[in-house]
Amino acid sequence: MTSSPLRLGIAGLGTVGRGVVQIVQRHGDLLAARAGRPVVITAVCARDRTRDRGMRLGDYAWEDDASALARRGDVDVLVELVGGDDGPAKAAVEAAIAAGKDVVTANKALLAHHGQALAEAAEDAGRVLRFEAAVAGGIPVVKALTEGLAGNAITRVMGVMNGTCNYILTRMQSEGLPYEAVFDEAADLGYLEADPALDVGGIDAGHKLALLAAIAFGTRPDFPSVALEGIERISIDDIHRAADLGYRIKLLGVARMTGRGLEQRMSPCLVPATSPLGQLQGATNMCVLEGDASGPIVLRGAGAGEGPTASAVLSDVMDIARGNRVSTFGQPARSLATAKPAGATAPAPFYLRMELLDKPGALARIAACLGEAGISIDRMRQYDHPGPTAPVLVVTHRAMRASLDEAIARMDRTAVLVGTPIALRIEEVGD
Amino acid sequence: MTSSPLRLGIAGLGTVGRGVVQIVQRHGDLLAARAGRPVVITAVCARDRTRDRGMRLGDYAWEDDASALARRGDVDVLVELVGGDDGPAKAAVEAAIAAGKDVVTANKALLAHHGQALAEAAEDAGRVLRFEAAVAGGIPVVKALTEGLAGNAITRVMGVMNGTCNYILTRMQSEGLPYEAVFDEAADLGYLEADPALDVGGIDAGHKLALLAAIAFGTRPDFPSVALEGIERISIDDIHRAADLGYRIKLLGVARMTGRGLEQRMSPCLVPATSPLGQLQGATNMCVLEGDASGPIVLRGAGAGEGPTASAVLSDVMDIARGNRVSTFGQPARSLATAKPAGATAPAPFYLRMELLDKPGALARIAACLGEAGISIDRMRQYDHPGPTAPVLVVTHRAMRASLDEAIARMDRTAVLVGTPIALRIEEVGD
Repeated sequence: MTSSPLRLGIAGLGTVGRGVVQIVQRHGDLLAARAGRPVVITAVCARDRTRDRGMRLGDYAWEDDASALARRGDVDVLVELVGGDDGPAKAAVEAAIAAGKDVVTANKALLAHHGQALAEAAEDAGRVLRFEAAVAGGIPVVKALTEGLAGNAITRVMGVMNGTCNYILTRMQSEGLPYEAVFDEAADLGYLEADPALDVGGIDAGHKLALLAAIAFGTRPDFPSVALEGIERISIDDIHRAADLGYRIKLLGVARMTGRGLEQRMSPCLVPATSPLGQLQGATNMCVLEGDASGPIVLRGAGAGEGPTASAVLSDVMDIARGNRVSTFGQPARSLATAKPAGATAPAPFYLRMELLDKPGALARIAACLGEAGISIDRMRQYDHPGPTAPVLVVTHRAMRASLDEAIARMDRTAVLVGTPIALRIEEVGD
Repeated sequence: MTSSPLRLGIAGLGTVGRGVVQIVQRHGDLLAARAGRPVVITAVCARDRTRDRGMRLGDYAWEDDASALARRGDVDVLVELVGGDDGPAKAAVEAAIAAGKDVVTANKALLAHHGQALAEAAEDAGRVLRFEAAVAGGIPVVKALTEGLAGNAITRVMGVMNGTCNYILTRMQSEGLPYEAVFDEAADLGYLEADPALDVGGIDAGHKLALLAAIAFGTRPDFPSVALEGIERISIDDIHRAADLGYRIKLLGVARMTGRGLEQRMSPCLVPATSPLGQLQGATNMCVLEGDASGPIVLRGAGAGEGPTASAVLSDVMDIARGNRVSTFGQPARSLATAKPAGATAPAPFYLRMELLDKPGALARIAACLGEAGISIDRMRQYDHPGPTAPVLVVTHRAMRASLDEAIARMDRTAVLVGTPIALRIEEVGD
């Protein structure tokens, strides 16, 4: 056990950066006892040097440029908390690797886009690039998957990994509020990214899913192949109808290796109300890792915030301090396979909600469209309605998404459909 | 990265041993890709060499004695799956350490009793002794706590860590069956240890709690200080009454560092029916790790069985194969503090069920006993009853357990109490 301190350079003093500084300052003795050596901060970097961040920073060298920080001789590990999928964050990580430093990052966008190249560069240089904080906040899911389940062939990875979306969906449910109202609330609470599409469009959660899939299946991260669908079209009616059927709606990520290739999707799905995923409330995250030996392992915790994300950063830092060096994606990046995208997703039951003109034969025509596309109906219900259009809900038996889309196209050609139906997959998630 | 194989000696070919052999045989390529070197079995050991175990064992050297296996020159890691808190298991682990081998074990009893001495011996010899499989089966909870939350001061560790007890309690609830009937069922299903007190008396789960507490608080494992209470006295009436109040009864382990010292208890508690712990069904396990930065992290999975336990064994094996060497309890064993046992547990609301003689003033006398012990009553209810005694249920406000015991002693001295009341702590576990 070496007793030389591990020296951190913290790039970015936003919420997470401040959290990391606080842990290192508060828990110096604890970290040293556990790592067998001190863990210290030697330098920091942020845009505005003059701002009062409510913490003691005077002991640390200051750099205005993250890449300069990364190259400092008194920095062993770059902790990249700048953010952004390119620009200064990427430059700093590259500079750190080139200078022979290890890197810990919370940057899911950077890794989803450039993780393969950065991991290869790090491994070529004999350094590690770790990202526990990039996925599901304080939940040690990267570690659980990469190390805890290292003896398993992973059969499926699932996750609710965007707290803002789960906050919106569960608050619509609990308060009976429309999407727009809760979206505005979330914005007021500062829960939304500057570009809200990152959250409600499923992009942020999709980044995370692509990273977990790479570990799970030993494949190069492939974010462009993640089938993305946001929660923007989920209405309070969908929330209520799903509840009536015994389900909850979640922005759920699923990655599976199938005979047809790698299936990766991030989309609103119905899950049983009584399942752990269905019971997940508020901004909390949940990941379900299914190993062929372990069975399903469910992990639940805060998906964001200063403390939880800083805790995840420290998990990687402590691994490095202890001398535990794991490849970014669990095996050497150059040994990762290029996965063929599955294209079609596996068949599933679907929830289908639409509005029909209230005239004789309308329901029959819709049912016919489903039948012509080879889809059989599990349940079909027309609701009371004050207006001129009738809300209709269909739950199908297992069907291919392509068949469903064909049925919807047929419906579009009838004169009875008003607007575009909402189609949501019903995911079989286990108890 | 070394490419020399990591050579395992498997001591014990029961359920878990067979699971480990199967993973190594089935996933050779996967393990090698992830570890950067082959993971192989060179030798095995079990009592009966002639028994058909339904698997190919002919490639492995056979030893009749686990200690001889541990000392073999072609074994790098002893995988101890013999079981028992002393005897051949302890001898084999000691032999392995003395011979300079790393050790992976699933043996909670051994570690709860001798973990401190064995960890010291291993660390003195520069070897590791790891035990992921000893706690909560397939859930990578030791790793999550030791490494994933290494940046946190742990505020509380909780767990439902005996699947048999949770099976019994949840099946009593779902089927309305009495304790004895479900106990017999569990015995028929082979869910019970040879000495059932290990399960229903809370001893097995208490072993696990003591091990987690050592990691969480940096203290020497102290199983004798775990306050143990089994589920043997829980009746179907308790299950129903608790449900009426919105609770479930769980054999719950809790470890906390308090101002008075280390509190460790394993006892049946009431938890909210809607909490993750309350919703836990069947033989599944759940651990809740509370860090000061991370907040609560909930982990759920199979607590026993061939695949899940073997998966946990492989987690430790893969760490060793990858060169990741973590101290048994997260910091050098000789640096662990000796914790002062807290003695008294923190105050809590209690559930108190008793039978009273059905005569005037009985309820008033019981209420007086509580008042005299300084305990105030949140809810009190007397139920309809066909027989000569009246079932009475009391929910107290927060009280010290000692005060409650004093009140029960006072009740005993009245002429109205029949039998011994059941007192169960209501644990505040969060949402």
